[in-house]
Amino acid sequence: MEPRAGDESSKNGNGSANLHHHHFMGVEMDTIAPRVHPVVAPPPRTTFKKFKCRLKETLFPDDPLRQFKGQPCGRKLFLAAQYIFPILQWGPHYNLGLFKSDIVSGLTIASLAIPQGISYAKLANLPPIVGLYSSFVPPMIYAVLGSSRDLAVGPVSIASLIMGSMLRQEVSPTKEPLLFLQLAFTSTFFAGLFQASLGFLRLGFIIDFLSKATLIGFMAGAAIIVSLQQLKSLLGIVHFTSQMGLIPVMASVFHRTSEWSWQTILMGCCFLGLLLLTRHVSMRKPKLFWISAGAPLVSVILSTFFVFVFKAQRHGISVIGKLQEGLNPPSWNMLRFHGSYLGLVIKTGFITGIISLTEGIAVGRTFAALKNYQVDGNKEMMAIGLMNMVGSSTSCYVTTGAFSRSAVNHNAGAKTAVSNIVMSVTVMVTLLFLMPLFQYTPNVVLGAIIVTAVIGLIDVPAAYGIWKIDKFDFVVMLCAFFGVILISVQNGLAIAVGISLFKILLQITRPKTAMLGNVPGTDMYRNSHQYKEAVMVPGFLILSIEAPINFANTTYLKDRISRWMEDYDYDAEGASKCSGLEFVMLELSAVSAIDTSGVSFLVDLRLALEQKNVQLVLVNPLGEVMEKLQKANEGHNLLRQDRLYLSVGEAVASLSSSMKPQRPMADV
Amino acid sequence: MEPRAGDESSKNGNGSANLHHHHFMGVEMDTIAPRVHPVVAPPPRTTFKKFKCRLKETLFPDDPLRQFKGQPCGRKLFLAAQYIFPILQWGPHYNLGLFKSDIVSGLTIASLAIPQGISYAKLANLPPIVGLYSSFVPPMIYAVLGSSRDLAVGPVSIASLIMGSMLRQEVSPTKEPLLFLQLAFTSTFFAGLFQASLGFLRLGFIIDFLSKATLIGFMAGAAIIVSLQQLKSLLGIVHFTSQMGLIPVMASVFHRTSEWSWQTILMGCCFLGLLLLTRHVSMRKPKLFWISAGAPLVSVILSTFFVFVFKAQRHGISVIGKLQEGLNPPSWNMLRFHGSYLGLVIKTGFITGIISLTEGIAVGRTFAALKNYQVDGNKEMMAIGLMNMVGSSTSCYVTTGAFSRSAVNHNAGAKTAVSNIVMSVTVMVTLLFLMPLFQYTPNVVLGAIIVTAVIGLIDVPAAYGIWKIDKFDFVVMLCAFFGVILISVQNGLAIAVGISLFKILLQITRPKTAMLGNVPGTDMYRNSHQYKEAVMVPGFLILSIEAPINFANTTYLKDRISRWMEDYDYDAEGASKCSGLEFVMLELSAVSAIDTSGVSFLVDLRLALEQKNVQLVLVNPLGEVMEKLQKANEGHNLLRQDRLYLSVGEAVASLSSSMKPQRPMADV
Repeated sequence: MEPRAGDESSKNGNGSANLHHHHFMGVEMDTIAPRVHPVVAPPPRTTFKKFKCRLKETLFPDDPLRQFKGQPCGRKLFLAAQYIFPILQWGPHYNLGLFKSDIVSGLTIASLAIPQGISYAKLANLPPIVGLYSSFVPPMIYAVLGSSRDLAVGPVSIASLIMGSMLRQEVSPTKEPLLFLQLAFTSTFFAGLFQASLGFLRLGFIIDFLSKATLIGFMAGAAIIVSLQQLKSLLGIVHFTSQMGLIPVMASVFHRTSEWSWQTILMGCCFLGLLLLTRHVSMRKPKLFWISAGAPLVSVILSTFFVFVFKAQRHGISVIGKLQEGLNPPSWNMLRFHGSYLGLVIKTGFITGIISLTEGIAVGRTFAALKNYQVDGNKEMMAIGLMNMVGSSTSCYVTTGAFSRSAVNHNAGAKTAVSNIVMSVTVMVTLLFLMPLFQYTPNVVLGAIIVTAVIGLIDVPAAYGIWKIDKFDFVVMLCAFFGVILISVQNGLAIAVGISLFKILLQITRPKTAMLGNVPGTDMYRNSHQYKEAVMVPGFLILSIEAPINFANTTYLKDRISRWMEDYDYDAEGASKCSGLEFVMLELSAVSAIDTSGVSFLVDLRLALEQKNVQLVLVNPLGEVMEKLQKANEGHNLLRQDRLYLSVGEAVASLSSSMKPQRPMADV
Repeated sequence: MEPRAGDESSKNGNGSANLHHHHFMGVEMDTIAPRVHPVVAPPPRTTFKKFKCRLKETLFPDDPLRQFKGQPCGRKLFLAAQYIFPILQWGPHYNLGLFKSDIVSGLTIASLAIPQGISYAKLANLPPIVGLYSSFVPPMIYAVLGSSRDLAVGPVSIASLIMGSMLRQEVSPTKEPLLFLQLAFTSTFFAGLFQASLGFLRLGFIIDFLSKATLIGFMAGAAIIVSLQQLKSLLGIVHFTSQMGLIPVMASVFHRTSEWSWQTILMGCCFLGLLLLTRHVSMRKPKLFWISAGAPLVSVILSTFFVFVFKAQRHGISVIGKLQEGLNPPSWNMLRFHGSYLGLVIKTGFITGIISLTEGIAVGRTFAALKNYQVDGNKEMMAIGLMNMVGSSTSCYVTTGAFSRSAVNHNAGAKTAVSNIVMSVTVMVTLLFLMPLFQYTPNVVLGAIIVTAVIGLIDVPAAYGIWKIDKFDFVVMLCAFFGVILISVQNGLAIAVGISLFKILLQITRPKTAMLGNVPGTDMYRNSHQYKEAVMVPGFLILSIEAPINFANTTYLKDRISRWMEDYDYDAEGASKCSGLEFVMLELSAVSAIDTSGVSFLVDLRLALEQKNVQLVLVNPLGEVMEKLQKANEGHNLLRQDRLYLSVGEAVASLSSSMKPQRPMADV
């Protein structure tokens, strides 16, 4: 079955790849012209069609309308309703078995949500009860609209921290509590509006610009900032700094050693130790997840009981104090869409919106991947956004899917979003009947609960993995981390995102070029730096360009190619016998796009090379590149058929056969 | 000479490429295992070495120290002096023949520089004489430091316009002329400092972010803004708006029709017609370049004589008025590095610096390419920057290489930078002795000279070329154009740069993926959309990814690959007999880099595919990608030797031979 050149196999060209090897092995010259496959442009499309296609890839990469294709009208309506309300997808198949799982997991996350809700609201400088309100309405809405089965919705630490710190820069939560609350609700509204718009406009890819490295650094930094804030309640300090950074907080803490309360510190250490211990146990044995899940509520109950019995509030241990009973009051009349703070609330809404969206989507995707179902990012954004918009008019502040609680939810065996409903109902019962019980809950326990929760955000193994694989990503991570703890939460994040984008631009501005050599005994041409056995073909300089050619890199490519040519000459002088350079071959397989600057670059390069008696050969231009070269071809003669090949192998074979046997070195 | 599998050719593997074709042609199964070439990582390098190499490619792509290598010490010193003062390169070989050419071209550009200098200074709201000062000192300095032989240095229209408009936003040139002048010199200093630093720090690639399309749109818009400003002198309006945009200027012009002076308009039309006619003639016959080059000076002389003889200044024709005689006074005492305007001058310096640098470098490169010599961008930046820094302390405002004058210089036969010296000396003579002659020069002629000069900046054929080749670039061009004429010069530019960068980021965020098929009769696999004859290999989904895989696109790639897989299944159902999907092959030849998010993506993809009984196969990972995959391999088993191939052909050959003959469709 082995094909032979010249007989039947020459019909299908199978033999062509083999012929040329003999040329540069110097054995003999083969006179049979090798078969060459033409390079063609993709089928022509109109500009409008191309634009439509590009738009589709940009905004609808997941093709959400696919399922509607070819369905009858009624079915389409039903599918649309299912698309908007995912509850219609799983609701009809819901059964008692699933409910049993959901009620266990719902109660478990409720026991976590109640103390965390109170704590996080305090982190955001809001009344503790707002944290419980926010664990009641939003989970209900998410259960109807959301497509994740594991997300446990409620307030989260980082978004709470950012909202509190940004608003506090302009309004004092202690001096103007009502205004502060109004601004918090309005920021929540804008966060929700922004999130929903991102989803609706299908611009969800914006959150992809927060890379994994950025997020790990940012989360770790935020965890430290949050923990530092807890020094207030853990040490019992009354006059705490309103700044967030590492340095001012530490300075403030050690300036006020006189305010430290040993009773508070002792109690804090006990409960912090207890919580960390339970966390450690659960991490070691995931089956015992309920130990760490139940620990916060147990700590709250124990400490409250302790304070109540020993009247510890009279001995320097600060307590939450009286909380109002009853469900969420409406708050739409508290939204302020005018006045001097509008800029502040929009900015706060934007940043908390992005951050909480990123957390929610990442958590949803993580557990969807574990259980092998799909989460539609843009749909999730709409769900989270609507949830926050409704929340803002029912006395809730910004909420999303929390990582720690979702993990507990997943471990506790949650099957559907009904676990969120169970949690919500539990919180409702608490709000209606159990609020007086929290009167004596000491703040120090809430601090310990927050510290234990955020410690999980510091992911040292992941950081080590990044260090091992990509040093630049590690630098980005460090920038995010130190930016957050030393400058500010928002600026740290902005710096890290800026550096990540700069790296991408740098890759485009300085694309890699590689000299290719022939892998002996094959038709393949590979980077001769990577594949040491690859041999150069005399007379040919074969370069691959590994990025789109555009305005940002044409100048560099010009410099770089002339450097490659100098290196070629230099090597040629060093080596004994090697014919002069006749062809510079650009292997364009990795050039995914080209713009007008890139086309001019190729035209100029061709002219410059011709002045040196060197021919420019293009190999395998991809669809879009080929199209643009064709359009630019008039007058520039860039695409002579004998300077354009489908593969390096064919090009070398075809051009070698037409090469002059020897050329003097002088005119290279 | 045809190799045969199984005999001598199997030693060097020549036959391997041919074996597998028969598998998917369905003819028969070959039992001889095809030879597979291993994928290797590039030779290991330390992180420091990699960093050094990356830094070199980023900052020293042209390898400027190459010429110093292996030279003796004295020679090195001489080369360094030549590097800093290019005049030492050509000075020693200078001769009378060259001087003859240079004196002709120098006098020609002087005749253009004198009227243009006066006009552009007025455009920048500066005293006219500053324009002449700026045509005296900077060309001298450039002649010593610059490496372009054709650049004619002096004030230019766009930088003048921008400096004037930016400074006028905060300081009135009529009410506080001294302060305005001080700010102009200080801005010039910062522009020079900024330009020189860019060159010194080798960050010259920053100007590459101004793409050709952006520049064409920007230049055309700026030309229109500049021309609109000339309506003041062309119509003889006294009270002209201080705004620059199209709409306010037109409104102002038609509000003040009572101020229009028919004498001025008549005179303006005559000279504008004359100048445009000479421009047309010179464009038709490039040999007659001297007609358009001399026309401005002739117009100035004629009109001045006319005004002087007929006392036309008493009939509504405004004239320049008395100009001071003498050379540049020192101005270092006028530089203000403190006070409330520091931010303004730094911003103005930055923007005029970037714009004038871009023009200077582009002009230098254009003529260097025509005459086939090298211009070192970073060195040019230092030369232009130093020239402006010295200029700022000798009463000059920002200067650079002007396009129109450099073209005249080139056409007039300039051989070296001596033509700049000749021009400079001519301007010096003018400053010393001829200034009284300009007293009666009418402003209307200066307006006509500016309009004629900037009309050449509107490049309609280039705009048409962009429209033909790249519609997106055309949109960028339109944005720059309309941004400049409707919003403001700086913002128009910023918008266009922003859109260009956004396009690059979009290309990264939504990388192209293509399904590859086998080009019949070869070992090549190409995009089956572009090459209609390419045939799919049953059981294989071969995808090429055409961008670096990083945080910005992993989510998209996941979606896109699952869509490709759905399409594959769908096609399989439509087609009659086709075995189920067994391998998803990612052809990574175009993936020039990968980051930690990208590595996680591949790991996750492998796991997700395995759950569907599909194997992930990687083909030809490039050096950096291979390195990172190797580092990430521990525990993830991503790089199993039988799932990693050097070419698609080898992979298909090797995997087909181990494929089960038929698999049920159900578990795909």
